[in-house]
Amino acid sequence: MNVGILGATGYTGIELIRILSKHPNAKITYLSSKHFESQLISEVYPGLDGFCDLILEGDNFKKAVATCDIIFSTLPHELTFEIGKMVVDAGKRLIDLGSAFRFDDFNVFKKWYGSNDDIEKIEYDKYNKAYGLTELYREKIKNAQIIGNPGCYPTSVILALAPVLKNRVVTDKNIIIDSKSGVSGAGHEPKFSNLYSECNENTKPYNVAKHRHIPEIEQELSKIMQEEVKIVFTPHLVPMTRGILSTIYCNLKSDITLKEVYDLYQEFYKNDYFIKILKPGKYPSTKSVAGSNFCQIGFETDEHTNTLIIMSVIDNLMKGASGQAVQNMNLMFGLPENKGLDIIRIFP
Amino acid sequence: MNVGILGATGYTGIELIRILSKHPNAKITYLSSKHFESQLISEVYPGLDGFCDLILEGDNFKKAVATCDIIFSTLPHELTFEIGKMVVDAGKRLIDLGSAFRFDDFNVFKKWYGSNDDIEKIEYDKYNKAYGLTELYREKIKNAQIIGNPGCYPTSVILALAPVLKNRVVTDKNIIIDSKSGVSGAGHEPKFSNLYSECNENTKPYNVAKHRHIPEIEQELSKIMQEEVKIVFTPHLVPMTRGILSTIYCNLKSDITLKEVYDLYQEFYKNDYFIKILKPGKYPSTKSVAGSNFCQIGFETDEHTNTLIIMSVIDNLMKGASGQAVQNMNLMFGLPENKGLDIIRIFP
Amino acid sequence: MNVGILGATGYTGIELIRILSKHPNAKITYLSSKHFESQLISEVYPGLDGFCDLILEGDNFKKAVATCDIIFSTLPHELTFEIGKMVVDAGKRLIDLGSAFRFDDFNVFKKWYGSNDDIEKIEYDKYNKAYGLTELYREKIKNAQIIGNPGCYPTSVILALAPVLKNRVVTDKNIIIDSKSGVSGAGHEPKFSNLYSECNENTKPYNVAKHRHIPEIEQELSKIMQEEVKIVFTPHLVPMTRGILSTIYCNLKSDITLKEVYDLYQEFYKNDYFIKILKPGKYPSTKSVAGSNFCQIGFETDEHTNTLIIMSVIDNLMKGASGQAVQNMNLMFGLPENKGLDIIRIFP
Amino acid sequence: MNVGILGATGYTGIELIRILSKHPNAKITYLSSKHFESQLISEVYPGLDGFCDLILEGDNFKKAVATCDIIFSTLPHELTFEIGKMVVDAGKRLIDLGSAFRFDDFNVFKKWYGSNDDIEKIEYDKYNKAYGLTELYREKIKNAQIIGNPGCYPTSVILALAPVLKNRVVTDKNIIIDSKSGVSGAGHEPKFSNLYSECNENTKPYNVAKHRHIPEIEQELSKIMQEEVKIVFTPHLVPMTRGILSTIYCNLKSDITLKEVYDLYQEFYKNDYFIKILKPGKYPSTKSVAGSNFCQIGFETDEHTNTLIIMSVIDNLMKGASGQAVQNMNLMFGLPENKGLDIIRIFP
Repeated sequence: MNVGILGATGYTGIELIRILSKHPNAKITYLSSKHFESQLISEVYPGLDGFCDLILEGDNFKKAVATCDIIFSTLPHELTFEIGKMVVDAGKRLIDLGSAFRFDDFNVFKKWYGSNDDIEKIEYDKYNKAYGLTELYREKIKNAQIIGNPGCYPTSVILALAPVLKNRVVTDKNIIIDSKSGVSGAGHEPKFSNLYSECNENTKPYNVAKHRHIPEIEQELSKIMQEEVKIVFTPHLVPMTRGILSTIYCNLKSDITLKEVYDLYQEFYKNDYFIKILKPGKYPSTKSVAGSNFCQIGFETDEHTNTLIIMSVIDNLMKGASGQAVQNMNLMFGLPENKGLDIIRIFP
Repeated sequence: MNVGILGATGYTGIELIRILSKHPNAKITYLSSKHFESQLISEVYPGLDGFCDLILEGDNFKKAVATCDIIFSTLPHELTFEIGKMVVDAGKRLIDLGSAFRFDDFNVFKKWYGSNDDIEKIEYDKYNKAYGLTELYREKIKNAQIIGNPGCYPTSVILALAPVLKNRVVTDKNIIIDSKSGVSGAGHEPKFSNLYSECNENTKPYNVAKHRHIPEIEQELSKIMQEEVKIVFTPHLVPMTRGILSTIYCNLKSDITLKEVYDLYQEFYKNDYFIKILKPGKYPSTKSVAGSNFCQIGFETDEHTNTLIIMSVIDNLMKGASGQAVQNMNLMFGLPENKGLDIIRIFP
Repeated sequence: MNVGILGATGYTGIELIRILSKHPNAKITYLSSKHFESQLISEVYPGLDGFCDLILEGDNFKKAVATCDIIFSTLPHELTFEIGKMVVDAGKRLIDLGSAFRFDDFNVFKKWYGSNDDIEKIEYDKYNKAYGLTELYREKIKNAQIIGNPGCYPTSVILALAPVLKNRVVTDKNIIIDSKSGVSGAGHEPKFSNLYSECNENTKPYNVAKHRHIPEIEQELSKIMQEEVKIVFTPHLVPMTRGILSTIYCNLKSDITLKEVYDLYQEFYKNDYFIKILKPGKYPSTKSVAGSNFCQIGFETDEHTNTLIIMSVIDNLMKGASGQAVQNMNLMFGLPENKGLDIIRIFP
Repeated sequence: MNVGILGATGYTGIELIRILSKHPNAKITYLSSKHFESQLISEVYPGLDGFCDLILEGDNFKKAVATCDIIFSTLPHELTFEIGKMVVDAGKRLIDLGSAFRFDDFNVFKKWYGSNDDIEKIEYDKYNKAYGLTELYREKIKNAQIIGNPGCYPTSVILALAPVLKNRVVTDKNIIIDSKSGVSGAGHEPKFSNLYSECNENTKPYNVAKHRHIPEIEQELSKIMQEEVKIVFTPHLVPMTRGILSTIYCNLKSDITLKEVYDLYQEFYKNDYFIKILKPGKYPSTKSVAGSNFCQIGFETDEHTNTLIIMSVIDNLMKGASGQAVQNMNLMFGLPENKGLDIIRIFP
């Protein structure tokens, strides 16, 4: 299939290229970049030469839609809404790695992302779209025209919580999520706060209790538990490039052994290639999934406070963004989910 | 005063040397090291030459006690118990940077640290000792003969929680502590898990709900709140050398504004030179205190879950170990608390 | 083919597993490890589960030789000599990632590596062995029984210098090689000098003018130039996990433009898939080849001193070790050189 | 004395504040910043509160010159020329941490820095100015009105080469300088190439044989050797925040033992507090001087090529910039050279 990537030179864009250049069924035919228009992608990012040597085009969305079977967008939501309409009209398909299509209720999107556009709303509800957390929405994704690919933090959090919320092993109160992310998650815009000398040897919280991933996480957890779930969410930047670790704290509803928790997760994810449940006593580390599309989940029970501690790790650019996007693409085109994605983590 | 450091070549040992070499009232006269016995400290650690050029002696505790006014010990508790007795007998003073003297109840120590020695117990209770969290035990420290210098995590946690527990602004349930530490906290023993290639680009939880700092934290919080406090505590290693960030989650008991929380902390720590309370909207980062003895505390309220999020940062080798030890030494010898310790953080 | 890896849990061992687990023609059937004997490799290194789940055996060389078609050894030379004999006797094949078989003259090996064993010498010269720098010894490698896989530094250096020495564009005097390596090159033995807190934020030279890769480099450069070449070589450790950058300085023999140098390299390596020559004005960086088997070479001429500066980068665990080993395996078994090795660098 | 810092929020600016806030004889009275005008410096850089709480002013040079006894400038040369004139007219003193006043010949400056201004030239030669490499120009600095504070690379290089060039132990040909710098040397402008995710796990050469520090180094080495010296200079960025290591290769003129080289350096720098000569067999590492104003120099002889390898390390923000600037200020005001600068390196 012909694939286009809009916004190809950001970190999720070049990660899509890394994966799709070697994907047996995909052919990258269109790349766009505002900053690097008309340069060779392989000159902008040495190491791609021989794998992908396209010239970066400007934002010629019409051409992209006309010539590609599927489009990946990493653009701001204003532009993505525009592209969404064109894709639907042309009967093509779109995977949006931004936030434009992640919400069931357009008003929630508007509240948190400040969009001023009301016209979109009408279309928004009509679109055949799916939230692209593959393991939870497989059937819907297969047939959707537009995928709202999940945020990196939500992916790590929802996968970790789904089994215990679904099975009501924990209460819906006091769900505390403490996430640690590598700096690539902050994008590659030249901002002061992303400079090497600012981030190196530095761990810092940001957007505490205010991050835009909160409504996305709450939307999904509430659906899983079939009641309104509220979370506390604190993201942190740690001095590494890739990886997210989410440490999640829940109140256990009833007596349950660590082994039973393990069995419950194993059962829940028994058919999910990319989810790895760690045996009791083992904890995940970000490096164990670096460069791969896997999510590792481990846990511990703290009996003296009756707390379940769930720890999940993903590579924020893979399962947290581009890897999951390709996983969804595979589903949408009837391919095995791990086609072109079966990459072993890089270690050390 | 003459100062001895037992176990001088570990990271807390050489940090003591960094501080005390420039301390106007201290003169380092005795250094011991098992690994590097009879070498010059300044050859083992280049950069100390000219500041401290003593020869490292073996474990000649008698000489240390006889010739020094105060001894800092970074040795394992078995040895420290031995030294404690000698120091007390000689009427000298000891600051222990290990865990030997941090507990009110020797049985708690035995349970968590696995000591087999019962003879110590008798002396343990008789010693004139103090828990060396300077801001909370100033008067006791001044006159104590033995200081159990707090652990790095406990320092960051207890300082962050004391004002709200004391004022009963939060409940004693669901106190979640998620701490992130630089790798120097793991010591400088050549262990596989501390290798550069294992830690770099890696964030990992460890000792989840099992860390030996739990009973130390609970002992102190319970005294502050005058009832039994239980905590959930998860330490993590992040790829940096120095620094601890503790992110702490509590249930707010009643309506309180962020500004009122700020005022409460300001009031609580109004006389404490090394505690810095950040204005509402500002969060601490480890780099803001690197190399210094300061503790920065910030907070956020999450109204939709009625949660208070407290964030504190320290340099684990300074306020988390050697800096606080010198702060205590100053108190014990009638010096201003920040004498020789008034070091600005290094940035970037 | 059946593949065995002796010393599978070192960094080059697990990198071999990363590559060979996905290699269409290879099947890993034997793994050994002294430290982790009888554990699952995928428990020792999480992230391998599903890809390689063998149990690590002890040093049962007989079984390895009997059951495998080809053996990769990362063991010390004493053991590798032993294995070499067994492999030759059994008519199997060996790729040694250590230093045992890199030398034409056994006396050079003995001088630099201090082997005391004379019996080996006899066999040493008789073996059908090849120096495994693929691009230079392709034909010999195809038929050799034993491959002395090059050192990481020599690979980066010899590839960079071969074209200009062969074409005598530079003099054989004053060849200065300044190499910078990531810490994984120092192995994963728990040594003090490899600890995170020692290496982080630290750049340091080591083994200056004494490194054991000097005779290996000089042996090969002398053969290329057909006269004795002496080099100055200084390795450095820089705070990163993977990657080598060698910056090489030579005296230009005659007037030659940067463009002519570029053409010369292009011509020299025109048939070499894994060698990438950078256009004039572009310099290589280690991240451009991270995780891949590529070597990037760039250069600059300094006219005011008549100096040619050559810069080459490799991933020390890939082209510098395990990647090149598999490249050689491919050759030895009649496969395309990049079979199973055509991995794009990971960025960022 | 009253001190002003123009451009106070760059990395050299805040390093000046770190030092001068604790300097017994200096009082910071004026800080300027274009980006952060009218904010508190201690809000822009948390951790300075209590040490320096001035409000950042705009570029009110008149006020700065009128109210300060000495001004440190980190501004671009166009502005510094302007300030220079004002300072001279007012009979005050200026230490410029930029490049404006480092050159003996204004035409060299113009050629490399592209200044278009000719009017400056006239004043340039008339100014009572000195090149601020303290150890070499002590007497001139004491009385100069304007100091051209050396570049970071030149400081590390000239200090390393002065003894052997002065004593003509090495030839003036084939002087190869390979320098490795932490990323803070690239400044704190938000540029793509300085982003964390671009620099982390990456070592890269830049400005090969073209760096603007070349003419500065050649100017000084030529004066030392009293003949024209040409160098080859390649700077590299390595993934750390602070530190420069320069590895320098020279041809030895005659037989000289390593011990004799050591003695020669010891003699040359016998009165220089901040220069540390390492014993034969010891090599410097950047961490041994981090945060301090010291320069460590070590060496090795490679007899088989008759090469002397000199290795020097400095903290690029201290001896490479702000530390040396204060060292010069001390000299200019008749203070001991290490007043307020006697800071021990921070380790680990």
